[in-house]
Amino acid sequence: MAKIAIVGATGVTGGSIVDGLLESETQFEITALVRPSSVEKPATISLKEKGIKIVPIDLGGSHDELVAALSGIDTVISAIHYQSLSDEIPLSDAAKQAGVKRYVPCFFATIAPRGVMEVRDRKEEILDHIQRIYLPYTVIDVGWWYQITLPRVPSGKLDESLTFPNNNIIAGGNNPSALTDVRDIGKYVAAIVSDPRTINKRVLAYTETKTQNEVHKLVEKVIGEKPEPTELSKEQLEEQLAPFKGSKEHNQMRSIYEYWLSWGVRGDNTPENAVYLGYVLAKDLYPSLQGRSLEEFIQDAAEGRIKKVYQN
Amino acid sequence: MAKIAIVGATGVTGGSIVDGLLESETQFEITALVRPSSVEKPATISLKEKGIKIVPIDLGGSHDELVAALSGIDTVISAIHYQSLSDEIPLSDAAKQAGVKRYVPCFFATIAPRGVMEVRDRKEEILDHIQRIYLPYTVIDVGWWYQITLPRVPSGKLDESLTFPNNNIIAGGNNPSALTDVRDIGKYVAAIVSDPRTINKRVLAYTETKTQNEVHKLVEKVIGEKPEPTELSKEQLEEQLAPFKGSKEHNQMRSIYEYWLSWGVRGDNTPENAVYLGYVLAKDLYPSLQGRSLEEFIQDAAEGRIKKVYQN
Repeated sequence: MAKIAIVGATGVTGGSIVDGLLESETQFEITALVRPSSVEKPATISLKEKGIKIVPIDLGGSHDELVAALSGIDTVISAIHYQSLSDEIPLSDAAKQAGVKRYVPCFFATIAPRGVMEVRDRKEEILDHIQRIYLPYTVIDVGWWYQITLPRVPSGKLDESLTFPNNNIIAGGNNPSALTDVRDIGKYVAAIVSDPRTINKRVLAYTETKTQNEVHKLVEKVIGEKPEPTELSKEQLEEQLAPFKGSKEHNQMRSIYEYWLSWGVRGDNTPENAVYLGYVLAKDLYPSLQGRSLEEFIQDAAEGRIKKVYQN
Repeated sequence: MAKIAIVGATGVTGGSIVDGLLESETQFEITALVRPSSVEKPATISLKEKGIKIVPIDLGGSHDELVAALSGIDTVISAIHYQSLSDEIPLSDAAKQAGVKRYVPCFFATIAPRGVMEVRDRKEEILDHIQRIYLPYTVIDVGWWYQITLPRVPSGKLDESLTFPNNNIIAGGNNPSALTDVRDIGKYVAAIVSDPRTINKRVLAYTETKTQNEVHKLVEKVIGEKPEPTELSKEQLEEQLAPFKGSKEHNQMRSIYEYWLSWGVRGDNTPENAVYLGYVLAKDLYPSLQGRSLEEFIQDAAEGRIKKVYQN
């Protein structure tokens, strides 16, 4: 039985991965590496109740302890918080020493070349390190989440489902973007990490591509209400990003604007661009593996079946 | 007939590429982009005599002129001098606008991950730019040249062939390294740029892998003289590189030490590592395409058939 260790198992992406592994036909023995201070938190206890082994460990702590914690582990999956990305350096070093056969660094987002998004560039720098130590890896990106794609509708019917309703139509709203339901990430990950073809590869797992105008139309079709669009031009976005130009400083609003610029203005987040950048597509590897459609997600949201992300 | 434009056609790599294209069974229409001040140089005149079209142009000059020079060109190959790598930014921008179908940036060296060699990192940053503008590309690396691999032998018999005889045995001399005869680079390039499978890929074209100890033994076998080895340890190399740590400053000795550290100490320059880093191997793509063996090169050197590199 493949032994998988996860970092960030209590987060949004990590939670989906845990569920995907548990629900997979392949059986996995799952270990969650958890900060010692988080062991008693309800989210950790809930993992334990699902049969996940909890190992309290400080990634920035003793190298030897980290190696011991990873010894016997086949696959390490990092769904670490973006503010802790640098912890992947000691984590990958320990994985290398422990003989881990596959390391999945924390990408799990949209497609873009280097030099467009500060957060993504930091992920690429972690991958540079992984490559310098020749640790076998698989990069998994999933596009943009359904959960942060929908606009609000005037009646407020979707408000309970959306943490960040987004009514902006960016630069005309006609760039397609690869989208995935957060709840499906784990299903894709379970397939990808069980597949020898994905070793030392980048994989894009996404369910649909849609432009923002198509999303608005689909919401109107499903809900019967027209979302109110707000225009956000390329120039407005660039103006908001101007203060950060040339800096490597992290800032949450900067990240959001850079994502919008990337998928909204530049149109980076497409399967075609992923292939150009060296990715293989989960759709090609697993043609029968289907995620939930955006239409189904909108229906679920309208009927209160969607849990807000970042609210647990 | 495929139209190819070359930058750096009068250099060592560029010269091999021109010859390889001319000798190929595939017919190419070749244009050399040449600095206006170099048009009357003997090397340029010699290109003209081979039937190469000479276009005098300043890569840092007018964008529109550069676009015009590249219009109708299918493939651009940059074998630019490493000190002019940044000229590839305007060159690739113009190639994109002119609708060039394949851009070969200047790599043509050893395999290594990012963060090991300053020169290579600058090449990767050019590739980042190429990817940001979604210009179709092919990266070609060729490993380390035979021409700078051989040690001198006591009688001086090889001195006329070697610009940089290298008697150092680095870190024990047991790391294999991918090697190629400069004279064969063009032959590999002609195959790679004619191949639709190599679009948006990295390709390693090399002829043999050898450790330094194997090279010394082969020289002794062919010449009948034992080269005198000088030991160069990992620590000595690191000490010589210490002043450059953390800096992006370019320095010629730094580059050489970093190459040695990479292929000699780290063992980066192997086909296995190339595949790990996402390369395809020319040997797999063109199994019947054979470069000259190192043994043949040593014989050629012993018999005065090798032109010193960097001496024309």
